[in-house]
Amino acid sequence: MQRIMNDPDIIVDEMLKGFLKAHSDIVEATENPRVVKAKDIPEGKVGVITGGGSGHKPAFVGYCGKNLCDAVAVGEICSSPTAQAFLDAAKVADQGKGVACLYGNYSGDNMNVKMAVKMAKKAGVTVKTVVANDDVASAPKDQREKRRGVAGEVLMWKVGGAKAAKGGDLDEVIAAAQKAIDNTRSVGIGLTPCTLPAVGHPNFEIKDGTMEVGIGHHGEPGIEVCELESAEKMAKRMVDVVVPDYPFESGDEVVVLVSGLGATPVMELYVLYDEIDKLLAEKGIKTHKAYVGNYFTSLEMMGATLTIMKLDDELKELIDMPANSMGLKQF
Amino acid sequence: MQRIMNDPDIIVDEMLKGFLKAHSDIVEATENPRVVKAKDIPEGKVGVITGGGSGHKPAFVGYCGKNLCDAVAVGEICSSPTAQAFLDAAKVADQGKGVACLYGNYSGDNMNVKMAVKMAKKAGVTVKTVVANDDVASAPKDQREKRRGVAGEVLMWKVGGAKAAKGGDLDEVIAAAQKAIDNTRSVGIGLTPCTLPAVGHPNFEIKDGTMEVGIGHHGEPGIEVCELESAEKMAKRMVDVVVPDYPFESGDEVVVLVSGLGATPVMELYVLYDEIDKLLAEKGIKTHKAYVGNYFTSLEMMGATLTIMKLDDELKELIDMPANSMGLKQF
Repeated sequence: MQRIMNDPDIIVDEMLKGFLKAHSDIVEATENPRVVKAKDIPEGKVGVITGGGSGHKPAFVGYCGKNLCDAVAVGEICSSPTAQAFLDAAKVADQGKGVACLYGNYSGDNMNVKMAVKMAKKAGVTVKTVVANDDVASAPKDQREKRRGVAGEVLMWKVGGAKAAKGGDLDEVIAAAQKAIDNTRSVGIGLTPCTLPAVGHPNFEIKDGTMEVGIGHHGEPGIEVCELESAEKMAKRMVDVVVPDYPFESGDEVVVLVSGLGATPVMELYVLYDEIDKLLAEKGIKTHKAYVGNYFTSLEMMGATLTIMKLDDELKELIDMPANSMGLKQF
Repeated sequence: MQRIMNDPDIIVDEMLKGFLKAHSDIVEATENPRVVKAKDIPEGKVGVITGGGSGHKPAFVGYCGKNLCDAVAVGEICSSPTAQAFLDAAKVADQGKGVACLYGNYSGDNMNVKMAVKMAKKAGVTVKTVVANDDVASAPKDQREKRRGVAGEVLMWKVGGAKAAKGGDLDEVIAAAQKAIDNTRSVGIGLTPCTLPAVGHPNFEIKDGTMEVGIGHHGEPGIEVCELESAEKMAKRMVDVVVPDYPFESGDEVVVLVSGLGATPVMELYVLYDEIDKLLAEKGIKTHKAYVGNYFTSLEMMGATLTIMKLDDELKELIDMPANSMGLKQF
């Protein structure tokens, strides 16, 4: 395991120290060492928070910043933050207007957020939630409530953060973020496994010469393991999973997000994006904006995810709003 | 080789197609398919160009944009762009005020830039150059002209691009970029090799459990191969190479850039940065600004580079200026 670390048991704390120093213009520490908050949060707005396990950089702390999340709860690697961390994130983000907690559909996060919402209520803080479930491969279409949240969360944060920044009230922020994720579908293809630093070896396998379509961010099994294919064929597989599920149709305007899973060279993401774009154009689907890069990763996994979100006028305006965080800087 | 590509022989062209589509708000194609230009270049300014081999994303095309490079020549993977590409980059960037070509010290690039400068002169375009040589490990201090350019190039482009955007004339832009690189030192530590897509296997070796201090971006041999160390010890090694070479001293204000080499999880870069920051603070060296992330990579190599640049008032102002490119967005 060729990693840059000291003690794997404290890697998250050490990471946060470096993160806070490097981005002191955007984020700052809070009393809870596992909660990061945005600097200079504008007064009087609805709070927007998220949280999740570590190892997915820029997710989750990388989306703490201007017109994005106001506070982020940080978990151990691939583990949910504690209920206390979600609660403390809500507390630092609350300005009496309530807090929107926009997070991903994983059992640990669900449990801890639910607990935090109750604890917050007792403390006089109203927290409402949106649970991202954009990963098409993780459950059938009629069981969307079982689907995991993956890179579509980035678009949910973008939309929810922008709506709050524009002065939306709590219900409006929740409605916009819910619409964002309802309009969003994702799928991933994994090319290599990843290794938790404290474990020292991969806890799942992807054989050389094969790829796993629909793999989750923690190596959750996908739809199919098949031979490694060309970028053109990978793009077709991804589009064929994502497009019919929503379904995205001719005339739709969309945001396309292609994220690397960590170790895939960024140049390859552009090769993949070019193929995806051609397929969408053939279908008459118009890309309003594309994000290509490492937006939601899984340590040193190789592979990529495709996320598509259908826009309406409101979502377009919110997506186009500037933002400033470590993971998403947009003029 | 678990890669996302079609034909390795055309991967650069395919990458550029995706890159140009994804970032059509910042960059655009030119008549030469291997030259990318910034969109909406402000009128009447000195042109700033660079160029280099592919596989180092965001370098080089990722630094084409506002207040950075106006045009970038694109080479094959790990190979210099052609003289024609450098020439065409100079032509599209020229507005009669001359062009600063800020590039890295590699034999192919030196040869092609030299040729391009001559060809440009015949075509009536004045091109002056700065050659980055920030990689301390690549030659002794008294042979700086033999040192390679590595991640310090990012700071050179930032400074040169900002100086041109502020209305500097050609000599002023060249002087600022030259000062930037003269004030900059870098070193890398490689943890794994990388594989050229057309080759299919690594062309150098880093054994598991070892690391190579001073490795180049193309696997050029470093100073020492030793056992894999903790982040704390790696940081010390890097600081001990970089700091005495310039030398950076107590009271100096610096920019610190920690770049991943491609496949190292970004969280580990923050762990490393935290250690580096502690060591610099102990020495009384003050970090004015830090960049931590994948700024100059080598395909899927694991490892990181440390770059330090000493600031004066001019450099500080230029570094702090906003910029907008795929690889560097700064408010």
